[in-house]
Amino acid sequence: MSAGRLAVVGLGPGVPAWRSPEATARLSRATDLVGYGPYLDLVGPLDPEPRRHASDNREELDRAEHAFTLAADGADVVVVSSGDPGVFAMAAAVLERLETRTARGAPAVEVTIVPGITAASAAAARVGAPLGHDFCCISLSDVRKPWEIVERRLIAAVTADFVLALYNPASRARPWQFGRAIELLREERAAATPVVLGRDVGRPDESVRVTTLGELDPTAVDMRTVVIVGSSTTRTFAEADGRRWVYTPRDYPA
Amino acid sequence: MSAGRLAVVGLGPGVPAWRSPEATARLSRATDLVGYGPYLDLVGPLDPEPRRHASDNREELDRAEHAFTLAADGADVVVVSSGDPGVFAMAAAVLERLETRTARGAPAVEVTIVPGITAASAAAARVGAPLGHDFCCISLSDVRKPWEIVERRLIAAVTADFVLALYNPASRARPWQFGRAIELLREERAAATPVVLGRDVGRPDESVRVTTLGELDPTAVDMRTVVIVGSSTTRTFAEADGRRWVYTPRDYPA
Repeated sequence: MSAGRLAVVGLGPGVPAWRSPEATARLSRATDLVGYGPYLDLVGPLDPEPRRHASDNREELDRAEHAFTLAADGADVVVVSSGDPGVFAMAAAVLERLETRTARGAPAVEVTIVPGITAASAAAARVGAPLGHDFCCISLSDVRKPWEIVERRLIAAVTADFVLALYNPASRARPWQFGRAIELLREERAAATPVVLGRDVGRPDESVRVTTLGELDPTAVDMRTVVIVGSSTTRTFAEADGRRWVYTPRDYPA
Repeated sequence: MSAGRLAVVGLGPGVPAWRSPEATARLSRATDLVGYGPYLDLVGPLDPEPRRHASDNREELDRAEHAFTLAADGADVVVVSSGDPGVFAMAAAVLERLETRTARGAPAVEVTIVPGITAASAAAARVGAPLGHDFCCISLSDVRKPWEIVERRLIAAVTADFVLALYNPASRARPWQFGRAIELLREERAAATPVVLGRDVGRPDESVRVTTLGELDPTAVDMRTVVIVGSSTTRTFAEADGRRWVYTPRDYPA
């Protein structure tokens, strides 16, 4: 049997309106979908309906290995990510397995990464253009890296006046980390700094809030929230109807 | 006449296969497209064909004002960006004009930002997952910010071991900046660090090269190139057929 194919597909932030045609095409011809259960649900019905292999969110390497096993048997496999699979998502885990398989001479499988719109871009679009100037994307999860490196990066980013996009700000297993991150940011950045909380952006239960670094409630986030913290130049204003916008101007003062 | 609408639409990195359905829908009903000429060309033919208002790449505020004038007269205007309009593109310029218009009580126009896949995500996908861990996006253009702030951010990012995605690395008017940036990065990061050069990714003349920080030719980039510089943990390997991959593992050593 000839080897199959494995695509790591980014659905974008949720709604089909933000899913690329390449992602849709790969999903429509897949024989097998592999992914975290809620992301498989986001795919919606397909015709013909592929086999769906749902797994827990924490079993990324097992999931990647399972996808390779299916593809090596001739399947057309899609590993499903939300957002962009290359940003804190499944592409890195699949590449880790691909390197291991290559080292041990496993049969070749054709691998493709299909990019998507990442959560920070979607949340930013809802309020304007907070990422309009240099920015950093940092995962606050210390499950796979020491908390010290998270702090070091937060301090570096805030000191050099980057906008910050914080992924995975909190979970039940990580209750204090976001509060500690906010403490660090407050030491360097003004209380009036605009902060955007985007939760499930692009999904039916979307919530997007604009607050400030000073007023931000450290318990108001969960693992489905992306947090954008402005730089010293990030601005906010409201239109006459009350709609609030946030953007970071293209000009940086000398 | 009732006020019209203004959408800032990200085409994604080029090919229609990476353009979101929302972007396609907004383009298909637009009466007027406003944008940098080559981006208007990327849109391709539309039916009915909207009016196309091409402008020079540097006239972003004029272009935004023109778009508002058309929309205030009742047009359905799309301001066209490549990639994600929120990342070093037109959304910030449109928000700047919106704030000015709001302050002077100009008639309201319904503004929407339609996100897209940004160039760094597309280039990353072609080689694997170099953005699989914390990363910074920095524009190397010093047209609208002092070069000192660029250097400060490069040093902060490299010292805290971020992956870097460098936008606008060079142009005819900025011949030495990329070379200087590479000098700074070489002081802190190993010569073997993987570097990805993605030029016109997603377009017919796409070029993606993997090199190293030590071997990188500082003259090998232009304004259509996005440069991804790995962190200390970024890895590269080749499959048996020679295909080279780059990824940054999810784990960071303690």
